[in-house]
Amino acid sequence: MRVVNNPPKSTWEELTKRPSLEKQVLTENVSEILKDVQRNGDSAIYRYTQLLDGVQLNSILVDETEFEDAREKVPLKLKESMRLAYANIEKFHKSQQIVEPVVETMQGVRCWRKSVGIEKVGLYIPGGSAPLFSTVLMLGIPAKLAGCKEIVLCTPPSKEGKINPAILFAAELVGIKTIFKIGGAQAIAAMGFGTESVPKLDKIFGPGNQYVTKAKELIQQSGTAIDMPAGPSEVLIIADETSNPIYVAADLLSQAEHGADSQVILVSNCQSIIEKSIEQVQVQLTKLPRKNIAEQALDKSRAIVFDEMKDCIAFSNSYAPEHLILASESFNEYVEQIENAGSVFLGNYSCESAGDYASGTNHTLPTNGFAKSYSGVSIDSFVKKITFQELTREGIQSLGPAIEIMAEAEELFAHKNAVTVRLKTVSDE
Amino acid sequence: MRVVNNPPKSTWEELTKRPSLEKQVLTENVSEILKDVQRNGDSAIYRYTQLLDGVQLNSILVDETEFEDAREKVPLKLKESMRLAYANIEKFHKSQQIVEPVVETMQGVRCWRKSVGIEKVGLYIPGGSAPLFSTVLMLGIPAKLAGCKEIVLCTPPSKEGKINPAILFAAELVGIKTIFKIGGAQAIAAMGFGTESVPKLDKIFGPGNQYVTKAKELIQQSGTAIDMPAGPSEVLIIADETSNPIYVAADLLSQAEHGADSQVILVSNCQSIIEKSIEQVQVQLTKLPRKNIAEQALDKSRAIVFDEMKDCIAFSNSYAPEHLILASESFNEYVEQIENAGSVFLGNYSCESAGDYASGTNHTLPTNGFAKSYSGVSIDSFVKKITFQELTREGIQSLGPAIEIMAEAEELFAHKNAVTVRLKTVSDE
Repeated sequence: MRVVNNPPKSTWEELTKRPSLEKQVLTENVSEILKDVQRNGDSAIYRYTQLLDGVQLNSILVDETEFEDAREKVPLKLKESMRLAYANIEKFHKSQQIVEPVVETMQGVRCWRKSVGIEKVGLYIPGGSAPLFSTVLMLGIPAKLAGCKEIVLCTPPSKEGKINPAILFAAELVGIKTIFKIGGAQAIAAMGFGTESVPKLDKIFGPGNQYVTKAKELIQQSGTAIDMPAGPSEVLIIADETSNPIYVAADLLSQAEHGADSQVILVSNCQSIIEKSIEQVQVQLTKLPRKNIAEQALDKSRAIVFDEMKDCIAFSNSYAPEHLILASESFNEYVEQIENAGSVFLGNYSCESAGDYASGTNHTLPTNGFAKSYSGVSIDSFVKKITFQELTREGIQSLGPAIEIMAEAEELFAHKNAVTVRLKTVSDE
Repeated sequence: MRVVNNPPKSTWEELTKRPSLEKQVLTENVSEILKDVQRNGDSAIYRYTQLLDGVQLNSILVDETEFEDAREKVPLKLKESMRLAYANIEKFHKSQQIVEPVVETMQGVRCWRKSVGIEKVGLYIPGGSAPLFSTVLMLGIPAKLAGCKEIVLCTPPSKEGKINPAILFAAELVGIKTIFKIGGAQAIAAMGFGTESVPKLDKIFGPGNQYVTKAKELIQQSGTAIDMPAGPSEVLIIADETSNPIYVAADLLSQAEHGADSQVILVSNCQSIIEKSIEQVQVQLTKLPRKNIAEQALDKSRAIVFDEMKDCIAFSNSYAPEHLILASESFNEYVEQIENAGSVFLGNYSCESAGDYASGTNHTLPTNGFAKSYSGVSIDSFVKKITFQELTREGIQSLGPAIEIMAEAEELFAHKNAVTVRLKTVSDE
């Protein structure tokens, strides 16, 4: 972990840069898969599943016996933990369901907004060594609360053609019954275009490798909405003399183990906390099964020392981290100054793992600096807000003349006339 | 206007299709402009302005004398109308600023969400024959309310190098001081990449022609957020025997005059209302200055008759119109069934023009079927919602064990360890 001392503001742009990926070949390969699925539907899906996941499936749809099997296989303690996480996530996301008031902007002119669940949504859950059942909860619970009528989940099968029981159990907890054994770009294509088996969906959510990410970017251009653009996961920790270096190190490592491309930044106004934290990273690193991955991520990571805490905060706002840990007992002094971040963890006991699994906040968050303009997933992500307006006779009479003047100034005479014909009749009545 | 009788559901997909544009050449041209501006900054901007807008400017920034001039030139009645619209738009958008509660998901675990204005936003206002000052209000007012710190507006200059006074006056009303005389794809590039004069912005809003739309799509892939994907404007009117054919015709025409590619759909359970409305369209059309444009749009438009009102509603939900007019005295019977629409106009007196200018709702809305998954512009569009969580010692003690179990099940041992080191210290204390 490279330590940088008091970098001048002119260098911040460079210091906040994320590594960019060469994408030309990727785009061509993924485009090819998308076109193939669009043209050939299920047969392309089965072909890619054999080619890329190494398994020839008889059916891509998970059946009832597999759900039953999952119920048996998931250990009781894990089920209980998932239920606890479920309750917290549900409680927090329910608080986002706010009915907005009807506003009478003028007498006879009433306006309001109503949230309506997006009808058909698709959730993508990556496969690989670890089953990301937590993401099933993080996407499935708000989808259910939002009232989405059709929720489809895609996740790649193992070489044995199976889905990890924890994923199936989490899906069942949420109430998701339609699960397809499809991974990668072909899953995104199936959900975006629809196939004989997979319904065409309105919006696609979920993390994934660079193929999945690219496929989501391309499918968005074909008219299917996506949750947000994606990049490698990242944490920025702001530490001061009240931080605990053991905790700081553990939090840095919990981000670093995500992947070799994970971004890990430590910022502090206290040189000794940085030194102790880096020491602790070395100690804790030795015991980690994913040591290799974490080491690669740490190689590219930085610890930055500033004289003033205000520069630590300013740097963090400039970086716009996905996860921000204010690892300080004095976090209340700083929290109001946070302007760009996905999710913020306050104080020494609020580790990122808490938000990753169970505190209640969502763990699907903007990376790559997108926290400057995007929010994490929430109830909002699963609804559209439709505006309504109702003008009475009185309303059009009081508002009409102003509309006529403005429409005429914009040279839109049919717009004006839509008011004129009404005003005429109303005054005749 | 083609009349379609009782189309079976199997034909709805075809009937709800919007015309698709051939985009390959467009993409290449617009990419070229983007690259040029990214590489050459202001000099490219001046060059394109001369080439495409036909004017050689000395400065692209609007200066104080031009604002003064606008104040003098805009007629008093237009100023008053704009102020009325301003008040209504502000009132409605303020109602969207809701402070969400802090939720204690478990004892010692508090979660909440805070809206923070996106720091730097750019508004694009098209030029052309008519000055779209109403869009300045529709984008500028929520940007101000959201607390965006830097609001930049770009709009193309006339051949005389001027900006329409109504646009400058509206911008001044909102409090926007930074206005650049830049149009087209080069404006989007300037705001997305930044130049010597134009700041690099976090999110870009606003309508435009196909070059602007394509530039926004491409700039989004470079990491600048945009309001929403765009397509030609559209209205769907649901009429019944209580509708007024004169109003229906006027509303159809007010959409049709927007552009030759505008989409205009009339759906009814009442054959005679359709016939009378089409008759009225012919009568009103003759008097319109933009008759030619409206005729082209009407040529591609459809009137659809269903036996049942429930099919009218279902067809509308399937089409997902940008603007939906429930032109019926019985709108209250149908309003709860509306699932996909940008903005809905209820009853015979709520014409689309009202929402376009002054009722208070926003007129920047999802087109092209995107109303299935996107909302119109609102306060939400100008903020990101950051989540916060604070775990006390008690919080990590009650939540920690569940996190450990889940992290282990996902094989993320550093995630688990971040909890373990805390639980260890806490129980030692």
